[in-house]
Amino acid sequence: MQRDLKKMVLEANLELPQRELVTYTWGNVSGIDRERGLVVIKPSGVSYEAMKVEDLVVVDLEGNQIEGELKPSSDTSTHLMLYKAFSSIGGIVHTHSTWATIWAQMGKSIPPLGTTHADYFYGDIPCTRKMKKEEIEAHYEKETAALIIETFREIDPSYIPGVLVCNHGPFAWGKDAKEAVHNAVVLEKIAEMAYHTVSLNDKTPIIDDVLLDKHFLRKHGINAYYGQ
Amino acid sequence: MQRDLKKMVLEANLELPQRELVTYTWGNVSGIDRERGLVVIKPSGVSYEAMKVEDLVVVDLEGNQIEGELKPSSDTSTHLMLYKAFSSIGGIVHTHSTWATIWAQMGKSIPPLGTTHADYFYGDIPCTRKMKKEEIEAHYEKETAALIIETFREIDPSYIPGVLVCNHGPFAWGKDAKEAVHNAVVLEKIAEMAYHTVSLNDKTPIIDDVLLDKHFLRKHGINAYYGQ
Amino acid sequence: MQRDLKKMVLEANLELPQRELVTYTWGNVSGIDRERGLVVIKPSGVSYEAMKVEDLVVVDLEGNQIEGELKPSSDTSTHLMLYKAFSSIGGIVHTHSTWATIWAQMGKSIPPLGTTHADYFYGDIPCTRKMKKEEIEAHYEKETAALIIETFREIDPSYIPGVLVCNHGPFAWGKDAKEAVHNAVVLEKIAEMAYHTVSLNDKTPIIDDVLLDKHFLRKHGINAYYGQ
Amino acid sequence: MQRDLKKMVLEANLELPQRELVTYTWGNVSGIDRERGLVVIKPSGVSYEAMKVEDLVVVDLEGNQIEGELKPSSDTSTHLMLYKAFSSIGGIVHTHSTWATIWAQMGKSIPPLGTTHADYFYGDIPCTRKMKKEEIEAHYEKETAALIIETFREIDPSYIPGVLVCNHGPFAWGKDAKEAVHNAVVLEKIAEMAYHTVSLNDKTPIIDDVLLDKHFLRKHGINAYYGQ
Repeated sequence: MQRDLKKMVLEANLELPQRELVTYTWGNVSGIDRERGLVVIKPSGVSYEAMKVEDLVVVDLEGNQIEGELKPSSDTSTHLMLYKAFSSIGGIVHTHSTWATIWAQMGKSIPPLGTTHADYFYGDIPCTRKMKKEEIEAHYEKETAALIIETFREIDPSYIPGVLVCNHGPFAWGKDAKEAVHNAVVLEKIAEMAYHTVSLNDKTPIIDDVLLDKHFLRKHGINAYYGQ
Repeated sequence: MQRDLKKMVLEANLELPQRELVTYTWGNVSGIDRERGLVVIKPSGVSYEAMKVEDLVVVDLEGNQIEGELKPSSDTSTHLMLYKAFSSIGGIVHTHSTWATIWAQMGKSIPPLGTTHADYFYGDIPCTRKMKKEEIEAHYEKETAALIIETFREIDPSYIPGVLVCNHGPFAWGKDAKEAVHNAVVLEKIAEMAYHTVSLNDKTPIIDDVLLDKHFLRKHGINAYYGQ
Repeated sequence: MQRDLKKMVLEANLELPQRELVTYTWGNVSGIDRERGLVVIKPSGVSYEAMKVEDLVVVDLEGNQIEGELKPSSDTSTHLMLYKAFSSIGGIVHTHSTWATIWAQMGKSIPPLGTTHADYFYGDIPCTRKMKKEEIEAHYEKETAALIIETFREIDPSYIPGVLVCNHGPFAWGKDAKEAVHNAVVLEKIAEMAYHTVSLNDKTPIIDDVLLDKHFLRKHGINAYYGQ
Repeated sequence: MQRDLKKMVLEANLELPQRELVTYTWGNVSGIDRERGLVVIKPSGVSYEAMKVEDLVVVDLEGNQIEGELKPSSDTSTHLMLYKAFSSIGGIVHTHSTWATIWAQMGKSIPPLGTTHADYFYGDIPCTRKMKKEEIEAHYEKETAALIIETFREIDPSYIPGVLVCNHGPFAWGKDAKEAVHNAVVLEKIAEMAYHTVSLNDKTPIIDDVLLDKHFLRKHGINAYYGQ
């Protein structure tokens, strides 16, 4: 089973450059085995072209390295805290994908402007507040997770599978590593379309709740009727 | 003949990712056999890479599934109603292609700003009005078609082979599935160029009627002289 | 020799989709054999993937078809008039490339904003005036050439190897078909960069004459020192 | 050893079209052998597809050609002066990459708006002042270097590995030719994201110093903990 998880995490990592979400090594995907409490994650600063299953790192939820010779991603503690806080998710991805990062640099949440957004995100894709000096200086990667968790205090992460970390870039998640990357791809496309929509008309109204409901629930939940 | 139709519909569907009109499974193409009253359409939520001729679904104009094991596209009833209303068309495509969707999110029709537009669309590419609450809640996919048909009450769909559904995205059509995708590709390129034209100068005048006539009729109708 | 010319014109045409200057068949390249007064040009509406040397059409400067079974490009008479008016050029290309067409739709000349522009175009890349009703209705393709020639009344086409036809798109030229396409690629890139420069600051000053001179003359004329 | 240097400089040059930093031959990379005082640089106006190790040119720091049959890049004297002034760098690259050139055409420095910027550039990516008439007319390529050196009078080039030459385009550098190209790729991506960030909100504040410190020093200097 861990072999399967590693394989999925590797493939999910390799999808990042294929889908043009990353430049060089600017992204990382992890997946969790909830039963054993083990997380498989990309090694730090290793190029995607050269990455093999054996290079992936296994850590427990406290960050102890269980398998792998390489150092895990420098963002590992962010991933671990998110797994602990969001019990419904099985995979996490962080990138600096262009349009999502532009929204993060603007410090603005992405409003739902169309059904593409509604098909995946059941409301705003929130941008966190700025980090405070002491948060940055203390345990930066943990505080990044804490900031995301704070932002989702009243949001179910299953309904909004992604976030913009202010001045930084997006994190996305899903039921496993594969779905996490899928949501990161969608987030990037939504960010691109929303940017241009508000760029031409910054008064563009958000879509009606009933349309948001219709599209999100067509694809998610017990009454979904999209797909096979 | 149905084999040929299926092959064309498959190829037309596969052209969507090749021409970068779709992310994942966000698009669907159908084609109609007018004599038999049968429509061939993409199955719902199936990836393009894996799709085979056998996966395509055949339905009659009332939506009864005639052939195929998979569920048809969730947009099937939109396609069927359009075939019934627009007797001159033989293929329909729906995508969330980036620039056309941006115009749909803005809720704005695309004005004819150049000869590229005039070569294919004989006037504005209209954006529908917003859907009403009761339309969304009742039979959403049918109401989407009804909205398009309402928008074309005074427009000949042979002269304007596409539309923007407000807050959603584009539909395009043609004499068959292949031409429908061709028109969807053209619509996306026109949307991109028009966006940037009005972005820099939102007072850009539309082209003169005489230029619109010249270019559209150079390619269409009995006096056309473009092509072999 | 005509075989060589045909080969160059074919390769120049094929470069259009490779360099992403065209969608479908929206572009055409020709080359002239000045000694014999014969022009080789793309056939009308034929896809680039399928085009072979034998498909190219040879016409004389009066438009009589000398070789080839297919109809020549619908823009042939524009090419012929430009060859007659601009004796220094040996190749012409017309496209609807995205950014150059956006400038043409805006009806604005591209000002020289950087050295990339200055390396190839010794001043504004002019946009023609709009065509008049009677010009469009009479001999549209010839009037298109007449409009370009009028625009270059006081410009040497060797120094400004391209133009934007208002509401339409770019033409570019060069000493042969290959260089014409090279200049069309450069024009598209310059148009993209200039668009974004003026979009953020429409008061961006043009570059100084001395910088324009330096860069243009570094690459062109008797004191050029760029290249081998 | 010089063979290795040539190989790296060739590969670094070939990376320019692969990473879409150049159109045609608009870019050049060099690398220096500090011990021998020899610089390996791209020949002028040679296409990347055809370039071989033997085509690279070796010059000394005074510009005397030591090896190679072809003329060196027309920007060679700019490279040489930068090597002399910036003793910590081992590779230099010049391109007209799209977004960096747009900033150069606007004559504006790129402010640090996010952590992507902070990961590589420890502050503004400066744009030089405009060149004066006499500088352009005298020794243009040397004066380009002088302008960059003047711009870095109070900046350590190891902390800001790139610059925008006003009205022209970017130069980037690194500890060797490979890292120089890496930094040029990063500069282009940062320029793209910063452009769109300020385009939507030209009052976007720069990131806090503490976040700039955190990200830059996570990757650089003795306390770096990114990578293996």
